[in-house]
Amino acid sequence: MTTQADARAQIGVTGLSVMGRNLARNLARNGFTVALHNRSVERTRSLMAEHGDEGDFVPSESMEEFVASLTRPRAVIVMVKAGAATDAVIEELTGLLEPGDIVIDCGNTHYTDTIRREKDLAAKGLHFVGTGVSGGEEGALNGPSIMPGGSVEAYRTLGPIFEKIAAQVDGVPCAVHVGPDGAGHFVKMVHNGIEYADMQLIAESYDLLRSGLGVSPGHIAAIFREWNRGELESFLIEITADVLSHEDRSTGKPFIDVVADRAEQKGTGRWTVQSALDLGIPITGIAEATFARSLSGHVDQRQAAQRTFEGRAGDVDPAGVVEDPKQFVEDVRNALYASKIVAYAQGFDHIQAGSEEYGWDIDRGAMATIWRGGCIIRARFLDRIRAAYEETPGLESLLVAPYFADAVAAGVESWRRVIAAAVRAGIPTPTFSSSLAYLDALRRPRLPAALIQCLRDDFGAHTYQRVDREGTFHTLWAGDMSEQRVDK
Amino acid sequence: MTTQADARAQIGVTGLSVMGRNLARNLARNGFTVALHNRSVERTRSLMAEHGDEGDFVPSESMEEFVASLTRPRAVIVMVKAGAATDAVIEELTGLLEPGDIVIDCGNTHYTDTIRREKDLAAKGLHFVGTGVSGGEEGALNGPSIMPGGSVEAYRTLGPIFEKIAAQVDGVPCAVHVGPDGAGHFVKMVHNGIEYADMQLIAESYDLLRSGLGVSPGHIAAIFREWNRGELESFLIEITADVLSHEDRSTGKPFIDVVADRAEQKGTGRWTVQSALDLGIPITGIAEATFARSLSGHVDQRQAAQRTFEGRAGDVDPAGVVEDPKQFVEDVRNALYASKIVAYAQGFDHIQAGSEEYGWDIDRGAMATIWRGGCIIRARFLDRIRAAYEETPGLESLLVAPYFADAVAAGVESWRRVIAAAVRAGIPTPTFSSSLAYLDALRRPRLPAALIQCLRDDFGAHTYQRVDREGTFHTLWAGDMSEQRVDK
Repeated sequence: MTTQADARAQIGVTGLSVMGRNLARNLARNGFTVALHNRSVERTRSLMAEHGDEGDFVPSESMEEFVASLTRPRAVIVMVKAGAATDAVIEELTGLLEPGDIVIDCGNTHYTDTIRREKDLAAKGLHFVGTGVSGGEEGALNGPSIMPGGSVEAYRTLGPIFEKIAAQVDGVPCAVHVGPDGAGHFVKMVHNGIEYADMQLIAESYDLLRSGLGVSPGHIAAIFREWNRGELESFLIEITADVLSHEDRSTGKPFIDVVADRAEQKGTGRWTVQSALDLGIPITGIAEATFARSLSGHVDQRQAAQRTFEGRAGDVDPAGVVEDPKQFVEDVRNALYASKIVAYAQGFDHIQAGSEEYGWDIDRGAMATIWRGGCIIRARFLDRIRAAYEETPGLESLLVAPYFADAVAAGVESWRRVIAAAVRAGIPTPTFSSSLAYLDALRRPRLPAALIQCLRDDFGAHTYQRVDREGTFHTLWAGDMSEQRVDK
Repeated sequence: MTTQADARAQIGVTGLSVMGRNLARNLARNGFTVALHNRSVERTRSLMAEHGDEGDFVPSESMEEFVASLTRPRAVIVMVKAGAATDAVIEELTGLLEPGDIVIDCGNTHYTDTIRREKDLAAKGLHFVGTGVSGGEEGALNGPSIMPGGSVEAYRTLGPIFEKIAAQVDGVPCAVHVGPDGAGHFVKMVHNGIEYADMQLIAESYDLLRSGLGVSPGHIAAIFREWNRGELESFLIEITADVLSHEDRSTGKPFIDVVADRAEQKGTGRWTVQSALDLGIPITGIAEATFARSLSGHVDQRQAAQRTFEGRAGDVDPAGVVEDPKQFVEDVRNALYASKIVAYAQGFDHIQAGSEEYGWDIDRGAMATIWRGGCIIRARFLDRIRAAYEETPGLESLLVAPYFADAVAAGVESWRRVIAAAVRAGIPTPTFSSSLAYLDALRRPRLPAALIQCLRDDFGAHTYQRVDREGTFHTLWAGDMSEQRVDK
């Protein structure tokens, strides 16, 4: 049995299913001595048997042994299922750790849980570092994007480790201290929300191209491959091309055509929208993307609606809305890019609002920097986002940064054409549409929200403000229609 | 001082700000003897001084006296601010009540708080009836729509009272037992969410008419008044006409033009969307309406976007998208009606999902029935909704009920024309657009959600289903591209 005197591991990982296993291997490959633990010892043994030669591992068969094998301050990555399982492991661990030690939760944890746990552990003299890790299994092994919250002190120990195992872009690691307590998990949540919007926008683009041009998935794969050479260059565009060019082996059909069209979700999109509602940030693109997934799963409703509206939905043949195929492809590309800019603008507003609400002081430019590599939404244009926030730290919206404003202005006519065509052809483009509506609402000098305020004052005495003088007012709608100034 | 021997009040109201005061007066006017209490006694006294002659009131100066003045089982309406204030009053009350007594929360309480409180009070032998009340001050006084949850036993006592003071439509009271514990507040929440969508749809219609026709608010008031004679007949359309024809007294301008265009919210729209996300119900109309309000309040962003996109947003003159003004008005009317049907279809799906999740067994037809009068969303077409659910209790969606399917089919070409025109003219119609996208997605034989599943399987091994056989599968994207059947 290992005792504290033998301690030599610089960091430990408990929970060795695929993500934990790959993080541990990544750490060892980068020269760190890694303590290993898993509730059932088989996983620890199989990791040692299959990859024990990749670096310096210290396997343990009990939590006590595991903790004893770590040098102080001990740093332990917990990589188990979010929720009760994480709480159970943390409780077991904290009984064995000593003040100054660090517990790192790399799961997809809701940031409010992280805030709670950080407070609990701080009371025991321990550091708790809720850490967002993006990049899936592949990223965990070869270099993810890492978003740690928690204390500055804890980051002094963890920073050099995280920055070494993270993806590197232009020599800059995709890891940075995001901010206190739940900041890391918050940013990871918004990252995932943006990922929902990104994928839905790609899905709408594919649907438009397939219906509008009447071409094969393989043909569309080539279009995406072409797009990936320009400003849309990104991991998701790249794998979209791969997926669309894949042929199903058992049927010989395009693979996309044999996959059930019910998109699932693991909850982070939902969390993102719920949080944005609390913070009053209109992230309409992410919301439509999240709801589009829900809708796809309502099979009975879909079948009933299909039967009911067959031949009487007022839609024209999609081919009929495409005058010039080449222009149509360019229009879809522009619409995708402009909508994507809106989704990111909304997501970064959300990060800013969370940062203000919780006092996290998050540097948005730094977030764009660490998303450039390792993570699912890695993309060329994140460099532009970084530059925009570096140039103007208090930027009101990404949409008004010169580079993005120019990009939107250059593509906006395409964007309008595509949506008008989709609406006529009955092709649903909820995220394209809501993103354009967002731009149009944001830039509109007068919004009909004024009418809503009038109605609310009429039926509920909810009061209103005026454009021409300070104060809060109420009109006696059911009385003599005079206006009262009211304290509020 | 009153003692239990003198008890003669049939129901009590504690919390006499305007809603409580009006409910108490409504009860007294309907022949009930009403006990009155307010933390500060001035409100009780002013109610007695101003309206003491409207019926039989029993004012009290302390909570003890108030409770002692009620016949058993005592029924106490709590009408204080939702949250901590409500908890404090409930705690004070429960110390004085006896088993079998009934506490009624008529505030806008989140249904999860109601579920918690019902459980707490049930443990003490008390009934807790979370009750949604809609209709604002006016409704509270003259007949609201009443949505009580809680036990069947409590409803035996309260039913005759609620059904008497509620609005009556065709001799049917707008009050019914919704279901156990939080069911009443849940339904009230969704009601408010639908109200958000209803108002946003009206606001978008107004904006389209004003920009597209270039006419005055007074002219548009006349259009709404005309619409109120048809299938759109409703309280909100009626007061929209009133508001739009109102002239500001201090400036002589149309009133709508002097009101600040920042719509506020009190949280029930937000709650509705958050709950729908948890339940997996795509209520896109309510979500867009809620976010439209948030957006309107971001003044700095709006000003920055206005400056940035001035003259380069690719929008054409709104007048240019209107070929035939008469047809345009009819198109907007059809778009409004069809979008409204979608918002209600989504809202009733949400009620059904909540009912299933919590075992409430809510009768959707009965909900439509009690919304026909008293409440803010009262409208002629609720009779059609009632009829649709009476005819087919397990209806998959309101959209596929023959009456509504016919209405949508009749208006769908208008709907498409209006959105296409709005998109070209740069007029934001987020709720019109998302509602049409919902219809088009729901009726689409194949959704591009299949592509999202492919991408998720590629980067995260999230697996997929196939269209041609049972099971869950994963493709080895980074390996030999073979397909594995996996247990899930």
